[in-house]
Amino acid sequence: MSGPGVSDEAVAVGVDVGGTKLLALAVTAGGEIVGRERRRSPVGDADALVDEILGLVRSFGGSRPVGAGVAGIVGRDGVVRYGPNLDIEDLALQQRLEDALGVPVTVANDATVALFGELRAGTARGACDVVMVTLGTGVGGAVVVDGRIAEGATGMAGELGHVPVLDGGRECPCGNRGCLEAYASGSAIGLVARERLELTDDPSDLRDVDVVDGKAVTMAALDGDDLALDVLRAAGYWLGVGLTGIVNVLDPELVVVGGGAATTAAPIVLPEAFGVLSQRILGAGHRPVPEIVQAGLGDDAGAVGAALLAVERRDRA
Amino acid sequence: MSGPGVSDEAVAVGVDVGGTKLLALAVTAGGEIVGRERRRSPVGDADALVDEILGLVRSFGGSRPVGAGVAGIVGRDGVVRYGPNLDIEDLALQQRLEDALGVPVTVANDATVALFGELRAGTARGACDVVMVTLGTGVGGAVVVDGRIAEGATGMAGELGHVPVLDGGRECPCGNRGCLEAYASGSAIGLVARERLELTDDPSDLRDVDVVDGKAVTMAALDGDDLALDVLRAAGYWLGVGLTGIVNVLDPELVVVGGGAATTAAPIVLPEAFGVLSQRILGAGHRPVPEIVQAGLGDDAGAVGAALLAVERRDRA
Repeated sequence: MSGPGVSDEAVAVGVDVGGTKLLALAVTAGGEIVGRERRRSPVGDADALVDEILGLVRSFGGSRPVGAGVAGIVGRDGVVRYGPNLDIEDLALQQRLEDALGVPVTVANDATVALFGELRAGTARGACDVVMVTLGTGVGGAVVVDGRIAEGATGMAGELGHVPVLDGGRECPCGNRGCLEAYASGSAIGLVARERLELTDDPSDLRDVDVVDGKAVTMAALDGDDLALDVLRAAGYWLGVGLTGIVNVLDPELVVVGGGAATTAAPIVLPEAFGVLSQRILGAGHRPVPEIVQAGLGDDAGAVGAALLAVERRDRA
Repeated sequence: MSGPGVSDEAVAVGVDVGGTKLLALAVTAGGEIVGRERRRSPVGDADALVDEILGLVRSFGGSRPVGAGVAGIVGRDGVVRYGPNLDIEDLALQQRLEDALGVPVTVANDATVALFGELRAGTARGACDVVMVTLGTGVGGAVVVDGRIAEGATGMAGELGHVPVLDGGRECPCGNRGCLEAYASGSAIGLVARERLELTDDPSDLRDVDVVDGKAVTMAALDGDDLALDVLRAAGYWLGVGLTGIVNVLDPELVVVGGGAATTAAPIVLPEAFGVLSQRILGAGHRPVPEIVQAGLGDDAGAVGAALLAVERRDRA
């Protein structure tokens, strides 16, 4: 029985639990979106986070399997061990949602579900070796090796945001310095822009903007603002440095970039990253360079993938 | 029919084609070594390299399958596309050895065969997710994901030496700056020590050594020489930085370190690397930290693995 909010075709609900926003989608078996809700993410309050997710899922009515992709380290048991941007630790999210909803729930890392969405219904359909980077509040990732999502020994594979690019460099929310996330996340882009505005007299339309975050920087850059363009290109440069190492290790045929920050910033960030990768990949000139493409499902990849993964796991159970 | 040089038990010959030396081993089906020969590697001369390998293989007599692991980028077709430390390009080594020897020949990347040796007959037996780093003239690597060696889209996966650790840092033989190899290879260790000796007045027994290379630095460090110890510990630090990124991406249960430089330097380098990894791994304190262990087959892993891979490929063909 489906609820009043969405069409009968919806087979599952997927929720993308990001550091800034919660996005819930009701999707069909083919990955088509037939219902959409979003809310701000409560940060540092696990109970409030669970309540918000329950509210979103219930808003669609019905009784469908639920998948959630969470920005953080998620064990194979659906426990969120560590979510720095949400400021949560050891939250048994899968169990709590199952107990409250009475339906099968699958909780996994946000980039893992996004890559699952792209593999089933997006850009990476049919590919064998794929690296996915998600640029949002933080930087996440997932990898497909020989057709299968790499989970790792403890289910924590794919943390591409915490590849060092400049040892001793900028502080990262993870507590280290110089991680890719400290240079290429939406938060990092906002922070770098605010520093540039404070420390220089460079003219910029951003001086008239109240909240200079990653989104404001991207908007200004798309309008041709030089300072904003510089900041975004620098993020693309660092993405290219990080991808060089990852591609040298995994040799993928394709790099898919998803997440909120990528959706709008891609036309500026991705060519910059590809330029660095093409020049620096080991054996440049003796091997193909994998394309860097935008996630076909855009900012929806995580929620779509979470829903499809929930269906696949229920059918396998 | 086996030759005069080694026992009838030898089922294959494996050759480790490194930037400094060629090591050939005759091995049994279980990976036991029953014959051993070594020569210096000719650098920058593909014909001389092929001749030296042929000479080594023939020195064992007989007519067994041959495997070779080469320091460089090797395609799935056994062509060495790019070997910076050997200074060779686009050498069809597998074909040339087969034509000359008339036996099945398998040519692959040196770290790939070393990891194969460790999986079949060494430290990693039975493991599912493993990262192997080889420290020799250069730094190589290979990865096992979910029980299988990751080959990548073009057979070039596992180039762990070219993970950036410090963008803009030391020059690397690959042409970039700041790769792990520029800090943790045997060549880098020698170079850093020579710089320290030239630029400082720090006392060191290395001042009385004719050729200050990675091996001399390791020997001095094991004798308690402070400058040499500093240099080796720094290499261990950078190995830890590089491994942090690689482990965050792949979440292995085990990191195996092999190669010539590792065999003797391991007691100094590996604890240093493990210290960095334990502190910086994403979610430190919320997850297990993979052990960093020496290759069980030591410096022989590459040649043993090449021989066993040659047998496996012949049996499958």
